[in-house]
Order: sequence, then C-alpha cells, then structure tokens
Amino acid sequence: MENKRPLILVSNDDGYRAKGINELVGFLKTIADVVVMAPTMPRSGSGCAITTSVPLKYTKDLQEPGVTRYNCSGTPTDCIKLALEELFTDRKPDLIVSGINHGDNSSVNAHYSGTMGAAIEGCLKGYPAIAFSLCDHNLNAEFMHMKPYIIAITKQVLEHGLPKGTCLNVNFPLVNEFKGVKVCRQTKGDWQQEFEMQTRKNGDNYFWMTGEYRNDEPESTDTDHWALDNGYVAITPTTIDLTAYQLKEDMQSWNFDIQQ
Amino acid sequence: MENKRPLILVSNDDGYRAKGINELVGFLKTIADVVVMAPTMPRSGSGCAITTSVPLKYTKDLQEPGVTRYNCSGTPTDCIKLALEELFTDRKPDLIVSGINHGDNSSVNAHYSGTMGAAIEGCLKGYPAIAFSLCDHNLNAEFMHMKPYIIAITKQVLEHGLPKGTCLNVNFPLVNEFKGVKVCRQTKGDWQQEFEMQTRKNGDNYFWMTGEYRNDEPESTDTDHWALDNGYVAITPTTIDLTAYQLKEDMQSWNFDIQQ
Repeated sequence: MENKRPLILVSNDDGYRAKGINELVGFLKTIADVVVMAPTMPRSGSGCAITTSVPLKYTKDLQEPGVTRYNCSGTPTDCIKLALEELFTDRKPDLIVSGINHGDNSSVNAHYSGTMGAAIEGCLKGYPAIAFSLCDHNLNAEFMHMKPYIIAITKQVLEHGLPKGTCLNVNFPLVNEFKGVKVCRQTKGDWQQEFEMQTRKNGDNYFWMTGEYRNDEPESTDTDHWALDNGYVAITPTTIDLTAYQLKEDMQSWNFDIQQ
Repeated sequence: MENKRPLILVSNDDGYRAKGINELVGFLKTIADVVVMAPTMPRSGSGCAITTSVPLKYTKDLQEPGVTRYNCSGTPTDCIKLALEELFTDRKPDLIVSGINHGDNSSVNAHYSGTMGAAIEGCLKGYPAIAFSLCDHNLNAEFMHMKPYIIAITKQVLEHGLPKGTCLNVNFPLVNEFKGVKVCRQTKGDWQQEFEMQTRKNGDNYFWMTGEYRNDEPESTDTDHWALDNGYVAITPTTIDLTAYQLKEDMQSWNFDIQQ
C-alpha cells in the first residue's frame, strides 16, 4: 500500500478560511497528498509564538481525495507542533509548506510573520519547510499566476531536500508577470512611525499598529527587497541558528570582572 | 543638564508585576536611569509576535528617582516598539534590557521567548540589547546572586557596544554559585512529546503544551546548554539576520524550470 505521492503538511497564519491557503492546497494537491492544520482564526503577526496558558483544540474540517483539513485554536507554531504529534502516526510528512500569506514577509518581517513561524517550527522539528507569501494584503488577492512557481520550487525542495536547520522564505511581488526567481539574503531595514494614535471621548489614547518600511540598503542587488522591487520571486534561505558567530569570537576578549 | 548616567529601557514577557523584572530594575538602577515598559499581563511564549488586530494602550505606574514604569496591553515586541516611539522624545536609550525571565531561554527556546522578542526588537531598531533569563520557572525564584553578573555584563555592553543587528541572550543556570561566564553558540536541540491530552466529560479533547527538551549535541562543549549544565552563565551572541548563507550559495545551481 505504498503511496508514491509526497505527503505535505500545510499551515498559514491568516486562518484556514483564507483564500491564500486554499489556493495553495489547490496547487499542491496536483503533485502531493495534503494535510492542512491551520489556525481557526486569523493569527497574523504571531511570529514563533506558542500558547502555554490555555489548552488547544483542533477540529476536522472538509475532506476530499488526497486532502484532509483540520483547524486548530492556536498559533501557526502550535498548529505545526500539534499536527506533527497527533496526525502523522503512520507516515511522517515529506515537507511542510506555509501560506500563501496575504502580505510581504521579506526582510525583517520574517521575525514577525506567523507564516514563517510555521515554517521555522517545521524546520526546528527536522522537516524541510517553505513559506510562500504574496505582497498583497487584499483578502481577494489573485494567486493563480503563482502556481507554476510554487510547483517548481516545491518540486526542487522535494528533490534536493534542505540542510537540517534551514527553510525557505519565498515572497512574490505584486506584479502580473514574474521576471523569474532570485535566491537572496534578508534585507537590512526596519519599520518607521509604527503607531497611529486615536483618542477616545473619555480622553484615553489608543495606538493602532501601522508603519512605513525603510530599506537600509536600497543599492544592494542581492537582497530579497531588491528582488521584489524588480519583479522577481525572492527566495531567502533561512536558518534557525541565531548565533552571531563573529561576535562570539570578538567577545572572547571581554572582561567579565565579577565584583561580589 | 547633561545626564551622565546611562539610560536603559527595560521590558520582559512575564508582565510588569513579575519578580524577575522588578529585581532586574533594582540591579540596573545602581548604574543607570531606567524606564520600564512591560506587558500588563504575562505574555510568555510570545516570540516576536506583534498585535495588529486590536489597538494598544499603556499606563504609567510607580515612579521613583531614576526609575519610571509603564505597562502596555501588548506583547513584549509591542512594548519596545511603543516605548521607543512614545517615551523617548528628548533622549534615546543607550541600551535595552529584557528579563529577568522566569525560565530557560537557551537553545531553540530563543525562538519562542518573548524575553528574546523584546531584545530582538531593540536590536531591529538599532539599539544594543540584552535578554537575561534564569533556569527557574518559580514565581518566587531567587535572583539576588545574579546581580554582580548582570551588572558586569551590562557594563561591558555599555562600554563595547554591540555590532548592529546583534544582541545577547544570557541564561543563568539554577545553581547557588555560578562558575563564571561562557560565550556560547545556540545548542541544536528540540522539544519532544509536547502535548498532554485531557478529555472533557462531553468527549472533547484538549491539549496542554508541555514537553521534554532533547539536546541533539550533548558532547559539544561550546553550546549554551553545555554551559548551563556545567554551572556557567551562558551568553549566546544572537543575530537578527536569518539568512542561511551557505544554502544561498548552494541553491544557485537549482533549476527553477517554470512550466506555464
């Protein structure tokens, strides 16, 4: 009863009802069997957050040939953890795919992204993992033109594998036709003017998150932001090892003189 | 009216009432002026999560000479973002310090930690940043013996600075006397058996997060986990650049053959 089709676990951070994840499942089911475990509610900006103060639950949803769907009360990271522990008793997934996110996860956004949180968790658990995002927050964004790229990138990862402790952060620019694929590094940049203050009638101030992205190296042509700005699909290979190795060497000469 | 004392912004993820942050403020105020912006409620496991679906608010709390305290409805990352935008109009902080966390943030825990989330956000905003954690979840954990180490490490960072895009993840073992300080790398490891299932009378299953940490390289002596296991204070220099550079090179030969 060996199944020759790959098995892919899919999650996202926009919730299981989002158009992006349902389009992604439609693309992937042409080349693989798919199990979905996605957040019940939208969980954008979850990063690698986990839920420790309340218990999680999950529910089985629609099933069709080759696709089984669940949704989970937790974050994207919780979804991956719970799916890997509960749903794959016989056969482990060959790949974990997250997205398609409604919005850009390039540059520093990788830190805040729940879409990347799911991919990083897959990676932490030893699985190859890919996060796909489109630079369009629209709930009805058009994803169909991404299909051949998503199929090609997924097939390459299934064929080559990924080194342990790495995953791919793949972002698509908001253009009608992609110029091709660039393998990039994470752009140095940051968000500016991140809050919009509103005052209630009672005088209380409230702060809504907003902001403008600033690219700190607009001249560099090897960054994910440059690729997106120039119409390319940006693949940023991503590591879960956060060690700053050069600083580790430099700090060997620091003097930690402890005065008890 | 120049103020010669450094100015330090302090946050955490256990909430502004936690013993750990209040002990930390007590230590730091001996060498610096301190502004606290910490979560109103405990937000353990927040990672780099941000709040986008509801607005934030913050409240001024206790004030004493050299220490001003605020608490914020958001995550640790939100706290740092909002503090930097709202509280430092005249003079920017010299350093951002997060903690003292009640619990271990070494190895892969750095990804899930809200304590590290605050330090990473400081780092993303261009400030030197340190996260301090003690391997003791007890609400009444004893922190006093950490004081000379926290003072020494903080002074060294104020003196040397940190390269842009890097911060320090500092973890203290649960021992009465520390053997010294080790500058380490992030241990490769993972959490196992992460859920405890409970069944309600109505048949619903609920899943509480739990788990056992597994060190995948127990023989390595340059890791943060080894340092902690052997009684040393573990300093893990940490980068916000997630790029997997070796994989970026290796992937240049991949074939992204797009079949339209």
